[in-house]
Formats: sequence, C-alpha cells, structure tokens
Amino acid sequence: MRVLVTGAGGFIGSNLVEQLLKEGYDVVGIDINFANMLDKGILKNKKIYLYDCNHISKNLQLIYDDINHIDRYPFIFVNRPFDSIFHLAASADIRKSLTDTNIDIKHNVLGTHKILEIMRVYDIKKLMFSSSSSIYGETKTIPTPEDVKDIRPISLYGASKLADEAFINAYCNIYGFKAWVFRFANVVGKYQHRGVIVDFINKLNNNPKQLKILGNGKQTKSFFDVSDCIEGFMNIPKKDKNDSMEIYNLANIKTMTVKNLADIVCNEIGVSPKYIYSGGDRGWKGDTPYTILDIKKALKTGWKPKYSCEEAIRRTVRYVCDFK
Amino acid sequence: MRVLVTGAGGFIGSNLVEQLLKEGYDVVGIDINFANMLDKGILKNKKIYLYDCNHISKNLQLIYDDINHIDRYPFIFVNRPFDSIFHLAASADIRKSLTDTNIDIKHNVLGTHKILEIMRVYDIKKLMFSSSSSIYGETKTIPTPEDVKDIRPISLYGASKLADEAFINAYCNIYGFKAWVFRFANVVGKYQHRGVIVDFINKLNNNPKQLKILGNGKQTKSFFDVSDCIEGFMNIPKKDKNDSMEIYNLANIKTMTVKNLADIVCNEIGVSPKYIYSGGDRGWKGDTPYTILDIKKALKTGWKPKYSCEEAIRRTVRYVCDFK
Repeated sequence: MRVLVTGAGGFIGSNLVEQLLKEGYDVVGIDINFANMLDKGILKNKKIYLYDCNHISKNLQLIYDDINHIDRYPFIFVNRPFDSIFHLAASADIRKSLTDTNIDIKHNVLGTHKILEIMRVYDIKKLMFSSSSSIYGETKTIPTPEDVKDIRPISLYGASKLADEAFINAYCNIYGFKAWVFRFANVVGKYQHRGVIVDFINKLNNNPKQLKILGNGKQTKSFFDVSDCIEGFMNIPKKDKNDSMEIYNLANIKTMTVKNLADIVCNEIGVSPKYIYSGGDRGWKGDTPYTILDIKKALKTGWKPKYSCEEAIRRTVRYVCDFK
Repeated sequence: MRVLVTGAGGFIGSNLVEQLLKEGYDVVGIDINFANMLDKGILKNKKIYLYDCNHISKNLQLIYDDINHIDRYPFIFVNRPFDSIFHLAASADIRKSLTDTNIDIKHNVLGTHKILEIMRVYDIKKLMFSSSSSIYGETKTIPTPEDVKDIRPISLYGASKLADEAFINAYCNIYGFKAWVFRFANVVGKYQHRGVIVDFINKLNNNPKQLKILGNGKQTKSFFDVSDCIEGFMNIPKKDKNDSMEIYNLANIKTMTVKNLADIVCNEIGVSPKYIYSGGDRGWKGDTPYTILDIKKALKTGWKPKYSCEEAIRRTVRYVCDFK
C-alpha cells in the first residue's frame, strides 16, 4: 500500500511515518522541515531522515519542500498510484500567528487546498486529515462533540483548520473523495520538539528553582500520547466505511489543568520550583482555557487511548530529557 | 460617516452604494468589475461609474482593482478614517468553481483575509460581511437557524464563505473587531445581471416556446428583494450592539420551487413555454436543493422584508427587461 504523508518531518508525522514503515507501507513523505530537525538534533530517528532530499529508497521517499510546491514533483504521482494521503503539514503554532497573520492562510489553507487539488488531478480518493480541537473556540458545550452547534474558532490557527474542513467537505461532495478528519486534543510524546512540556523542561533546565506558567495555571486540557493518536489516525479509517467526510475527536477522556501538568513534569524531573503565573485565564490570545472533547464517536469504532493523561506526560518528559 | 464598500460594482454592491450615497455617507468603493458592467450595459446607474478610476468626487471615490491589491492604495486609509467596511467582494458563481477550483480561494478566502489585515493595520473596527446560505450545505434542520449544528458546505463557494466567517471570528477575538455576518438566501432585484431569473429571461428571449430548467424544478429556494437585503445590511448593525461577531440569516419567510419561479417569470413576460427539465434533484454539483432559512433572529431586530418572494421576482423581471 502506497501512501503520501505531508508534514512527514513534524512531531506527529515522524511517528506516523515510523509506524507506516513498520507495517510495510510504501511511504512518500513531504516536509519543509527535515533539515531543521536534523540540525537541532531533535529527533533520534535520524535514520529516516538521512536520505538525500528526493532520494528514493525501497519503502521511503522524502521530498524536502513546501507542500504548496508539491505539484513540482509530478513523478511521484504518475508512476505509481497512491492509495491515500495522510495530510498533517501545517503551521501549528497558535502564538506565531499573532505576529505573522499570514502564516495560517499560507501553510494551512492554501496548503490543504493544494493537496485537495493534487487528489482531484491525480485521482486519489482517500484523505486522512489532522485537524484540531482549537476549532471549537470557547464553545459552552463541554465535553464537546464533533457536531456541536455554532463552532467559532478564536485563533487564526483554529480558523484555518475549520476552513480546511469546509473545503475538504466540498471536495468530497463534488469529486467523490472520502475523508477522515481528526480533531486532536494536545498530542504529546516521542519526537516532540515544542509545546508546553518542552517549554517547561527548557525553563527548568535554565532555572530549576522557578517555573513561569503562562496564564493562571487553571486552563484545562486533554493531553494524550502520540502513539494513541497514530493508532486512531491509521485504524479508524479501516473500520469506518464512510461515504464522504467523517469527523472524529481524538483525546483522553480525563483532562487536567496546566498546574497539574507542571506538577507531573517537575516530579518526573525531580525538581520543586516555585510557580510564577503570568496571570489571566489563558496562556495567550487565542488560547482556549477549557478544552474537554467528547470522544464517544471514536470509542465506538473500537479505538481507545492506551495511556492516561498522566502517563502520556511522564513518557514525554522521559523522551524529551533523553534526547537532550 | 465614511465607509469602504468592496464589490461596489456588483449587483448587491451597486444597490448598497446607491443607498449609502442617498443617506449622505462618504463612500469609497473598490471592485475589479466596474468596466465589465459598463461595457455590457448591464446597469442603468452609470452615473455612479462614470468617474475615472481612482477619481475622487465629493462623496464617492472608486478604485478599479482586485481587493487583493487594496494595500496598493494606502492614501485612502491614511488621510481620513473609515467608520466601517461593507465587504461584499467575492466570486459568487458556484458553478464557475467547478471549472476553476482556485477562484473561491483567491477572491473569497484571500480577499477576505486581505480586508481583515487592512482593518488590523489601519485600525478599522467594524465589518459588515455578505456571507451566504450556501454554507449550510444539505443540513437536515429546516428552517435552518444561524447556530445549526454540523455545518457542512457542499460547494467550494460555500466552503470559502465558512472559511471567511471563521477568520472573521478569530480576528474579532484577537483584535477587538465587531462584525455582522449576513447569510443571504437568493437575492434578486434591481441591477441584477445574472442568476436564475436572468438566465430564464435570456433563454425565453432566444426561444419563447420552451424553457430549459436545470434540475427537476422542485429545488426550493427563498428569493428576496435586494432592497430588503440592503435594509438589513445597513440597519441591523445600528440596532445590534454586539461585542464580536454576530450572524444573521436574511431571507423571505416563504419559499418557492424553481418551477413556481419559472411560472412567475413566464407570466410576467407573457409567454407560455414548454418546460424541459435537465433532471436530477439539483441544478448542478454543489447546488442545495432545499434552502429554507430561519430568520427569527433578524426579525427580532425589527427588520422585516417588504416584498414577498413573488413580488421580488416580478420586480426583478421588470428591471431586467427594462434594461435590455
């Protein structure tokens, strides 16, 4: 089975490519960021990324470019057909869009449209898409199901993901695609290179006596392990024979506050810093202080997270610290 | 009061500019299409468009360009402040996006993002936006309220409008804008130059003995008069002191089938053609066969359509025929 993975060099993408190769898939990966990750030594799975750009190995071919340029590589499409596309490439930094207000439009909206066009032109019918719980904004419906009413993203990142879903649904309707959209909570784990846990570890490495926490620490989030994320991403589409676009929340049932998260990170590292809160009910503009997803629909397919919120965080701390 | 109108040369835009000037506003209009409309003799209100491009008159200034280039005209922003922006510019032809799959991204998504950036950069806080009932796709909730759950656009046009709303909401949240989003049903009336009524009239002019109707004629739509549309667009924001983004359906309460519409057009013209249906439950891919909007929220503000569905259609036929 031959698949295209966009964002193959990213945190979730690296884990996905690794698992796909383990299960015998032929993988073509595209990312703009392989080099960055090698430079920084972020990832241990360097063997995957040691191929030259555009090099073809037996089961893995990597393209080092922006997905907006994917049509510069027709050779990957014309020789052998793809079964499906795992589309993960995106600018995923909500805070970055506060200073660069074009970034979500460029990478997320135009990038996803480009992938949909590739599917149309080369007749690829199946899409697995990484969306985000941030599309729900400040919904009052908690836990939040996929079909909640009045969805209002409050960040440009969330807006771009809702825009993507809208275009995916239209393409499914017009061109007969099938798409599985996964709205993730906070994914953590192996190969992670940024996000709140990495931030905490970096800060504690600099000064183990105090830890600055953005917001009031009461923001409630669901953290879940990247291996559970990949399991859902790869296996739910096999079970769910949908006709057009199907949406799944993927998260842990239990949630925790950012203060609880800090406690676990500090405990795992073995430090007891003083917490300093930056104040306010959220970490930054566009941060959603209270995200609890209803995951009943995903559970019905047989998918279930293996690791609890706490286990996922402890595993992540161990990975990140081992890689330093 | 000084306002910017994008899409000022379009069907709804022409009517809006006319009304704004009547009420004493200072108007800056931008459109890529003034010339087209003059060439084709579509509009009678030529006096508005006889100014040279970029000419400044006492109350009206027109810019003949794509809204994606609006930042090439800083002089309109720096000299005198704008109270608000009426953003109507869009590619509004659902069928066209079946052959040009980039058009909605370019004009609607990037265009709207450009307007939001202009608001951010030049500190303009109020936006009135023309969205569309086509975002609702094939919702099962009929009549459809603004906050209906599981909104799934089935056309690229509908997807682009939902994308626009998502970005508008995010900008409102981050930058403190206030926005009024109007989801229109089928607007008809004065200065209309395309759409189903104009199509019917053109076909009947060519051959008054038969009329080809796309679909099975049973598609149900709400047609309402452009003067009622403008009334809502201009006056609801004055009454509704919202804090961020507020959405209103604007339509007639009563709806009718495309077959009924054809009957009224033929009756008004005075012909009795044989109807030939192209078949299927919809006119084209992405057409929604059954659109009935719940307009209670708009009615609560005091807004009410003056013209019924039938009156609006008859008025439109008269306008279009007079202008030939």
